[in-house]
Amino acid sequence: MPLHWPEKVLIREVGPRDGLQNEAAFVPTAVKVQLLAALAGAGVKAIEATSFVHPRAVPQLRDAEAVMEGLDRLFMRGNDGVKSPAAPVISALTGNMRGLERAVRAGVKEVVAVVSASEAHNRANMHMSVEASLRQVREMGAAAAAGGVRLRGAVATAFGCPYQGDIAPGLVAGVVEGMLQAGVDEITLADTAGLGNPRQVYDLVTLLASCYPRVTWALHFHDNRGLALANCVTGLQAGVRILEGSVAGLGGCPFIPGAAGNAATEDLVYMLHRMGIDTGIDLDALAGCAGLLEEHLGRKICRNRV
Amino acid sequence: MPLHWPEKVLIREVGPRDGLQNEAAFVPTAVKVQLLAALAGAGVKAIEATSFVHPRAVPQLRDAEAVMEGLDRLFMRGNDGVKSPAAPVISALTGNMRGLERAVRAGVKEVVAVVSASEAHNRANMHMSVEASLRQVREMGAAAAAGGVRLRGAVATAFGCPYQGDIAPGLVAGVVEGMLQAGVDEITLADTAGLGNPRQVYDLVTLLASCYPRVTWALHFHDNRGLALANCVTGLQAGVRILEGSVAGLGGCPFIPGAAGNAATEDLVYMLHRMGIDTGIDLDALAGCAGLLEEHLGRKICRNRV
Repeated sequence: MPLHWPEKVLIREVGPRDGLQNEAAFVPTAVKVQLLAALAGAGVKAIEATSFVHPRAVPQLRDAEAVMEGLDRLFMRGNDGVKSPAAPVISALTGNMRGLERAVRAGVKEVVAVVSASEAHNRANMHMSVEASLRQVREMGAAAAAGGVRLRGAVATAFGCPYQGDIAPGLVAGVVEGMLQAGVDEITLADTAGLGNPRQVYDLVTLLASCYPRVTWALHFHDNRGLALANCVTGLQAGVRILEGSVAGLGGCPFIPGAAGNAATEDLVYMLHRMGIDTGIDLDALAGCAGLLEEHLGRKICRNRV
Repeated sequence: MPLHWPEKVLIREVGPRDGLQNEAAFVPTAVKVQLLAALAGAGVKAIEATSFVHPRAVPQLRDAEAVMEGLDRLFMRGNDGVKSPAAPVISALTGNMRGLERAVRAGVKEVVAVVSASEAHNRANMHMSVEASLRQVREMGAAAAAGGVRLRGAVATAFGCPYQGDIAPGLVAGVVEGMLQAGVDEITLADTAGLGNPRQVYDLVTLLASCYPRVTWALHFHDNRGLALANCVTGLQAGVRILEGSVAGLGGCPFIPGAAGNAATEDLVYMLHRMGIDTGIDLDALAGCAGLLEEHLGRKICRNRV
């Protein structure tokens, strides 16, 4: 029986947010904007560009407003205020109502709210219970709708938690339901700690898709044990058509030696193209983005490959 | 529709052969035997231990006879000449009749003959045409049968060739047929240049398995673009139950910076165990084997992971 594969997949580049927030040093706004421009130039259609969170919590992304301003200049054609048709969908993470308000003022049209499926991880990351987080997301959903902004959701530690261990599908479903009540229609299942495996990915996505058939699903893997691409493959088999990656595999944690970042976008795109699946991305140009980043950061990030 | 996964998979460790042959320096016989003993101790049930090829072609494995002698001492219980029940199946690669005769004299019970699906690669690697190689394999098959030795086959560049590009399934089938005529009943499809992708793996294995239903298939991936584990996953879906790996991901070519080795056995075993698939291997002990190798080689080989 032949396997069925999609004709195309949307790649969402999250390196500028999930990657750069984990760099020890602050990357200057101009470099960030240069990277975002290069990614858009390579044909990336969706980019998570920054985070509107407290500058003390994530100082690396304290220039969120300035980054958005830079992007506006990039993608506005001349002075007529019309967005370039080549402009990717730019989204930004927001941690709470205050972040959402900042994002709306900065002109962001798509924001992402993250809640962890793991109570322990949510308390560590968001300093509140899962229930309190979901209450906040409902508020954010109402404000986003009022402001004409799209709110996406992301479930952190959906495939396992470093504090709590295995995560029962019911915990993920609980967060999904809370997000649906907030008006969210697209949810990213994030393997925050790189603990997922291909069998689990297929089973969890299949279960959730059958329970919540109207949700658009996206997947986000960290490559801690080299399983990110394998997890993407069974995610595709389960029907997912949006995959998140980080250029050069950026990310991880500078305080954990050897911690891995996201699936490297260039590996993901290489694999999909070799499988005959279109992404609209120019792989050589994408590799150039990884090179740009390495040059700025002054170290090799990409895995050694021929 | 749930995906079906096997309950167990046989892992064949090929690092002592495919890995060490690519090391610039000769690894002393005692270290090789120590590694083989540690692998067996970790529960690895099948090991490709060495190559019987011309010492000028692969000087790193010029001690094949001595390695086999060391293994005999390891796995013989006392002086009664009875093999330990914990002994793994030890196989060795043989390049031609002379290699086969050396292997038989050294007491090897399972030998492997390799023929490339790519004419260009076979000429570069074996210095003869595919047809000539297959003629030789038939001779080897007859000699192996006469000597009470099992002959396995391996098809190199089955998923793509660095010289010839894409490899049509018919070219792989041609080698498979030649090997069947030589009495081979198990064939490894090898992605020698790390060019395969998950869709292709599923399609090629499915096609070959339907054409040659009596063959036992094994898969062997190099990780040049990080796709080795993803390729293993769709290989399992296509029904393959034998996967080859190299401890610490050893292998590649010391003359190509960044060239990748085989799928790292410890990553493969980690993934399978997380998927609920049994391998009989103790993952911690296997990680110890990788450490032993790194200690001896004096460099870090394993990918950076938490």
